[in-house]
Amino acid sequence: MEFHTDFKPLTVQPQEIEEKSFEIITEELGEHSFTADQYPVVQRVIHASADFELGRSLVFHPRAIEAGVAAIRAGKILVADVQMVQVGISKPRIEQFGGDVKVYISDPDVIEEAKRLNTTRAIISIRKAIQEAEGGIFAIGNAPTALLELIRLIKEGVAKPGLIVGVPVGFVSAAESKEELAKLDVPFITNIGRKGGSPVAVAAVNALSIMAARKE
Amino acid sequence: MEFHTDFKPLTVQPQEIEEKSFEIITEELGEHSFTADQYPVVQRVIHASADFELGRSLVFHPRAIEAGVAAIRAGKILVADVQMVQVGISKPRIEQFGGDVKVYISDPDVIEEAKRLNTTRAIISIRKAIQEAEGGIFAIGNAPTALLELIRLIKEGVAKPGLIVGVPVGFVSAAESKEELAKLDVPFITNIGRKGGSPVAVAAVNALSIMAARKE
Repeated sequence: MEFHTDFKPLTVQPQEIEEKSFEIITEELGEHSFTADQYPVVQRVIHASADFELGRSLVFHPRAIEAGVAAIRAGKILVADVQMVQVGISKPRIEQFGGDVKVYISDPDVIEEAKRLNTTRAIISIRKAIQEAEGGIFAIGNAPTALLELIRLIKEGVAKPGLIVGVPVGFVSAAESKEELAKLDVPFITNIGRKGGSPVAVAAVNALSIMAARKE
Repeated sequence: MEFHTDFKPLTVQPQEIEEKSFEIITEELGEHSFTADQYPVVQRVIHASADFELGRSLVFHPRAIEAGVAAIRAGKILVADVQMVQVGISKPRIEQFGGDVKVYISDPDVIEEAKRLNTTRAIISIRKAIQEAEGGIFAIGNAPTALLELIRLIKEGVAKPGLIVGVPVGFVSAAESKEELAKLDVPFITNIGRKGGSPVAVAAVNALSIMAARKE
């Protein structure tokens, strides 16, 4: 492979860009009521969205950070609702603890079962996930139906996730699904309103895995 | 695989959710100055972000839609800056015209060259892409450095993309890179400001491929 290197490249270091971005975020965010443990998640979500309103809309269960860090350190499975979330999550920090990042939505048995029941693949993928990823982190950035199904299975006593990162985006059921999540007394990270999405779920998980890799 | 089907599933159809969402978007967006051809892109970007401000910030080169549809129909390669963009793009509609969705940022030769030149992998991946994807669509949702490099290579006369979907998100160089893009007389879709991201790039490309598959 021959590259065009006959002109001066832009010399930019990704690490420097991130540090500079984090400085700007802290400065522009100003006062907030997040704890020191929660703040790295907020910061990384704003970094991924350039949206302070979205950052400020985050809501944390009191045990969320502790539970997320513990799940990662225990090598629990991380379940992504869609492939965009799966590929965005930094794998090495999950794998160093023996964990893995899985997505079930395109599994042949999930597709078949969704057709049979005339429902969404997202819902069926959650049913599969709760069996394979007990105590794991569920990162839901897209499908409100997946989050609603997970909430229902928790209420039924069938699902016992370590942490739910529930930040689906959208106009139909997204905000409502997050309101339901925020009522549960299980570790969750969510946000108020329609906004959210894959980069938000990814940013939250990556912030947690950085904490897991650092903290004592 | 045995699923928990001993309780009534939520019955939600993805197609209905999308249609309902599009109705809400059209209603809430109200007046705008986008053309009928541009509107499906705007609509899908708002659908993916739940952010009307972001949707309204979109800027189109006059030939953008026509050029994007033509590139997809001609089976040109679609270059994604990162894997999150690659996996989000709906493949069947690209592949039906003989096209493919590629991402070069994790290629071993790109990583090696970036180290050697002490620059970002994003920059080097663009240098590789312009050789393999002439006339293709460049979908940049994350890396401003990739977009700046592409702009530079266009000015040098080295790169000749069919369409640039340049919507990187962030606090360092993202807004500036998009301002530079908007000055070029080449087909582009971009937006004003810091916001953007993988889902925005994906939404724009998917809107174009739907048009390519439909239009005469």
